[in-house]
Amino acid sequence: MFNFKNDYSEGCHPRILEALTRTNLEQTVGYGLDEHCAQAAALIKQAIGCETADVHFLVGGTQTNLTAIAAFLRPHQCVLAAASGHINVHEAGAIEATGHKIVSRATPDGKLTAALVQEMVDEHTDEHMVRPGMVYLSQSTELGSVYTKAELEALYACCRKNGLYLYIDGARLACALASDCCDLSLSDLPGLCDAFYIGGTKNGMLFGEALVIVHDALKSDFRFLLKQRGGMLAKGRLLGIQFAELFRDGLYLELGRHANALTQRLQAGLEAKGYPLLQHSHTNQVFFTLTPEQYARFSQLVLFETWATLPDGRVTIRLVTSWATTPEAVDAFLAEI
Amino acid sequence: MFNFKNDYSEGCHPRILEALTRTNLEQTVGYGLDEHCAQAAALIKQAIGCETADVHFLVGGTQTNLTAIAAFLRPHQCVLAAASGHINVHEAGAIEATGHKIVSRATPDGKLTAALVQEMVDEHTDEHMVRPGMVYLSQSTELGSVYTKAELEALYACCRKNGLYLYIDGARLACALASDCCDLSLSDLPGLCDAFYIGGTKNGMLFGEALVIVHDALKSDFRFLLKQRGGMLAKGRLLGIQFAELFRDGLYLELGRHANALTQRLQAGLEAKGYPLLQHSHTNQVFFTLTPEQYARFSQLVLFETWATLPDGRVTIRLVTSWATTPEAVDAFLAEI
Amino acid sequence: MFNFKNDYSEGCHPRILEALTRTNLEQTVGYGLDEHCAQAAALIKQAIGCETADVHFLVGGTQTNLTAIAAFLRPHQCVLAAASGHINVHEAGAIEATGHKIVSRATPDGKLTAALVQEMVDEHTDEHMVRPGMVYLSQSTELGSVYTKAELEALYACCRKNGLYLYIDGARLACALASDCCDLSLSDLPGLCDAFYIGGTKNGMLFGEALVIVHDALKSDFRFLLKQRGGMLAKGRLLGIQFAELFRDGLYLELGRHANALTQRLQAGLEAKGYPLLQHSHTNQVFFTLTPEQYARFSQLVLFETWATLPDGRVTIRLVTSWATTPEAVDAFLAEI
Amino acid sequence: MFNFKNDYSEGCHPRILEALTRTNLEQTVGYGLDEHCAQAAALIKQAIGCETADVHFLVGGTQTNLTAIAAFLRPHQCVLAAASGHINVHEAGAIEATGHKIVSRATPDGKLTAALVQEMVDEHTDEHMVRPGMVYLSQSTELGSVYTKAELEALYACCRKNGLYLYIDGARLACALASDCCDLSLSDLPGLCDAFYIGGTKNGMLFGEALVIVHDALKSDFRFLLKQRGGMLAKGRLLGIQFAELFRDGLYLELGRHANALTQRLQAGLEAKGYPLLQHSHTNQVFFTLTPEQYARFSQLVLFETWATLPDGRVTIRLVTSWATTPEAVDAFLAEI
Repeated sequence: MFNFKNDYSEGCHPRILEALTRTNLEQTVGYGLDEHCAQAAALIKQAIGCETADVHFLVGGTQTNLTAIAAFLRPHQCVLAAASGHINVHEAGAIEATGHKIVSRATPDGKLTAALVQEMVDEHTDEHMVRPGMVYLSQSTELGSVYTKAELEALYACCRKNGLYLYIDGARLACALASDCCDLSLSDLPGLCDAFYIGGTKNGMLFGEALVIVHDALKSDFRFLLKQRGGMLAKGRLLGIQFAELFRDGLYLELGRHANALTQRLQAGLEAKGYPLLQHSHTNQVFFTLTPEQYARFSQLVLFETWATLPDGRVTIRLVTSWATTPEAVDAFLAEI
Repeated sequence: MFNFKNDYSEGCHPRILEALTRTNLEQTVGYGLDEHCAQAAALIKQAIGCETADVHFLVGGTQTNLTAIAAFLRPHQCVLAAASGHINVHEAGAIEATGHKIVSRATPDGKLTAALVQEMVDEHTDEHMVRPGMVYLSQSTELGSVYTKAELEALYACCRKNGLYLYIDGARLACALASDCCDLSLSDLPGLCDAFYIGGTKNGMLFGEALVIVHDALKSDFRFLLKQRGGMLAKGRLLGIQFAELFRDGLYLELGRHANALTQRLQAGLEAKGYPLLQHSHTNQVFFTLTPEQYARFSQLVLFETWATLPDGRVTIRLVTSWATTPEAVDAFLAEI
Repeated sequence: MFNFKNDYSEGCHPRILEALTRTNLEQTVGYGLDEHCAQAAALIKQAIGCETADVHFLVGGTQTNLTAIAAFLRPHQCVLAAASGHINVHEAGAIEATGHKIVSRATPDGKLTAALVQEMVDEHTDEHMVRPGMVYLSQSTELGSVYTKAELEALYACCRKNGLYLYIDGARLACALASDCCDLSLSDLPGLCDAFYIGGTKNGMLFGEALVIVHDALKSDFRFLLKQRGGMLAKGRLLGIQFAELFRDGLYLELGRHANALTQRLQAGLEAKGYPLLQHSHTNQVFFTLTPEQYARFSQLVLFETWATLPDGRVTIRLVTSWATTPEAVDAFLAEI
Repeated sequence: MFNFKNDYSEGCHPRILEALTRTNLEQTVGYGLDEHCAQAAALIKQAIGCETADVHFLVGGTQTNLTAIAAFLRPHQCVLAAASGHINVHEAGAIEATGHKIVSRATPDGKLTAALVQEMVDEHTDEHMVRPGMVYLSQSTELGSVYTKAELEALYACCRKNGLYLYIDGARLACALASDCCDLSLSDLPGLCDAFYIGGTKNGMLFGEALVIVHDALKSDFRFLLKQRGGMLAKGRLLGIQFAELFRDGLYLELGRHANALTQRLQAGLEAKGYPLLQHSHTNQVFFTLTPEQYARFSQLVLFETWATLPDGRVTIRLVTSWATTPEAVDAFLAEI
């Protein structure tokens, strides 16, 4: 059976496996205080062009989001997000479990705008309401869309004007930056937000996210919060070894480009066969709307995510490619469908 | 200056003040374990026709909501509410501060329906999302609307079918039950929900809400949770004395009828003068939409709540009457406006 | 039956009842933004000699402690306290429910010392442990003991040296300041801690505590936190009216002196009859250790708190007097026991 | 430099690395719903002789403890533990951050007893205190001691009598079970507690703990809580693959035996050289008390954990061996020290 269900169906990129194997019997101190983590942090700071940032390594995305948001906000502050945002829908209430409300707005493409943020801020007028403290967005978004540099600049200006932190969830940052519609590079990010994370789990690592804290006010005592939320890995070096491999020579973006290219190939093939795109994809996720008959046929042939069932019975599905997807798999699927 | 800003602008009904004065130097045990609280609970159980309910007395509405919801839900469960619900907008994130997400839907009249609840339940499909555990509604609602018996029956049936508790915020329950469009009595409530509270603060008491727990599964150890959330009043008898007075001979509903009647008088008078109602009110809150000029004039003459500013510059305001509002005050205001 | 169980067995001092009665039908804005609260805050700032402090009014002690501590600490910080501290034993886990650990030390007299605080700080060496953020103490303590000025100076110096806030629970502050062994006045407090509360519930009010925030870093957005924790009273003026009465002409300390004097009378009488004091009391609580036979006799005659049962079967009990205790009641009890 | 600092200084056992390599490019579903996890769970249920248990895989120990405890308790319930318990000292307040107090007792050997538990239960008399809901213990303990079968039977009987759950932290369960002073086997555990976890991180895995839920009342919706606390690994199969390898043919206990044997060798060697043992070790941790001169010498030669500094200046240190420690390393160290 074909599998375009997500970008974490396999283990890790062979170079990462090799690095883990090579270092397996080294003895290091625990909890991310080892040389591999130091090296990975240095490589990341070089790649983002920001020596003053703090870099922390965590295992997964929900863990990173909840730890960062709980660390950065005071108890009465809320986080502003798109209604489709990962923290609002797919984290089982993890943010609220740390005590913080998410205030959200529906957006057709999953992207927030400065105008939407300003609108949410303006609605919160007094102490009977939560106080907006942070904007959360993901790059690329849950719907595969990508923020341009101008959009992020406008959002960040809006945040600074309103005393909000801007935090970017980069679970799929590699695919966003490698996208043909993105005019951003890694080194733009420290100037466009207060903190962000560089996703590894969905881009060739066994697991791992690198949280980058840019704003000085957010840095103090972060390791306490990491430990308290259960996010401090005993053998922390596993995260350092993997990230160092991704950032040694540009493998990180290369894997994003690969994943995007395979979605392009898949998208073009399915469109050519007459399947109706929901929206043209520029990253590694593509959405189609299928009739019940088409849906049944897809279900027999391939693993995918069912996104929504429409009132008329049609079904929106999501197909995803990754660093591990091969052109051969895409072509074979296209031949059969 | 006239004052129709809210229903808690004065102290308490004279009979309540008299009861507090009469009992002032009595010695009782603390924390709600005294005879006055026992008597008040007995009177309430008689009024609602449910001897098996547990009755707890708290000081305020937000405190009651957060204590009850945190007590009734498991950590991963969310509460379903109207977008305009008090817990969702005007409690400064109190529910989320106890760890629980509120999932909400916009509704034109502030009322949930069984269909909306079912829709929210159906959207929550797996463990990546919070799990609906409870429905919250207020009777009357934030917008002054009132649920009928049939509507509550449909909602409660939907809740039971989906394994949800139904909890009713009765901050303005007296006005709802005394409303000419309400076919419910106090004794219907235990059959229509799992827990509810009877509001005193907005109906003639200095302060106080009586939480009624109907469902056996929600009863155990509630006093621990009351204490833990800071809601156990040392001189708990103050709550018992006041509620006993309200429920001794029907004063509770009488005050609700009084408040409603004064809003009817105010509403009729303002309509006669050509001010456009947002919606005909049957309780003690009424909303008008004013031009900027009218708004300025009202602002000079009367205290009220500004509800929303429309894109065209008009402003929706809320006027409220209470147990303490006099016909003379309404008429004098109508004469001047 | 006699009643020396606690200092909140009655309603309120007659002058407070009179003030509430006099103002009952006034119309004011809600939530503590009225003139009575402004006046009470001004009187308190005058009494403590600190114009720059913020004063907030809350209903009860546990509510005040949990709201203040949760507002002042970051999530990974703990509060240091005596093992017998109210927050550690008698608040049903209210502090932990806001996410913060209490680290405690046993002390024979219920008082912390600078040395004990330093010891607790020194034990917390890295990010695998919570980080001390605040010291909590009560004046007078749970055991009726009183901190001297020199003791508080040493504690506060230790706190500043270690980057800790010092917060004082003043549930029984009036009795502490009125004690013959106390060399402190109200106006010393702002120089000896970062925040403290002036207890009203146990000193003649129906209910109410005045939280005084001295340190500027702790002031911002406090009303949001007050609302979020359920501690913002709708008819907030009730707190202002009561505190204004207590601070208009020195009634606050006068009631403390009265309560202390009655405990002196009770203590002297019981000692004269041969009952063994646990420790000589200087405030309004006194502890005796009784044989089982004495305990049975007391139990028939008077309400009191049972503090602890010793391994040899003897029982430590606590007797409390208040603003409302009369010399006649004490003498009648002494005559009978 | 030698390294006896802890049992997570290396990567993983070669057989585990081989299993990860062999399966690296397999495609599986995410979040622990794959075949490898199913197989690992089946092997574990076979090893513990309990087909009805639920098995969940998590990444780390603090994460497992906080997720389980928060899932199993109601908000007002506390967990009882030894003062030296990992959750009480070395998890940065992770349990309190989920809202629960830890009530603890000092014990010389790090072990709780039924008598200590009963004492803590008896002290909690009413709703002003937290309510004991669970006992936490670790096997082996933080101090390397091991509970016997009789001790666990007594503790579990005490728990059942008092309505408490018993939860066992098995971070070092392999070494406990492999210890020469332990009369327990894996299959005894389901009869002696309500939930426990089998530690992998400290016993040859890259990371991973297997939480076994025995009591039916604790099972429902656990995957929601796992997700909410950030503990659901995207590539969950990594946990299944590793645990399956450990439980395929007894490797789990074999690694524990190896670690213990190396500590025996180290302990015997250091004792022979005159270094004073704190207590004879039967597991993989051993504690010595060194003079300042000895401490300085050790510090130059070997990495270890500093446990405590005594008033007289001597220092207690901890040495740990693991599945990866070689006899050669121990002997070389003994030759040099």
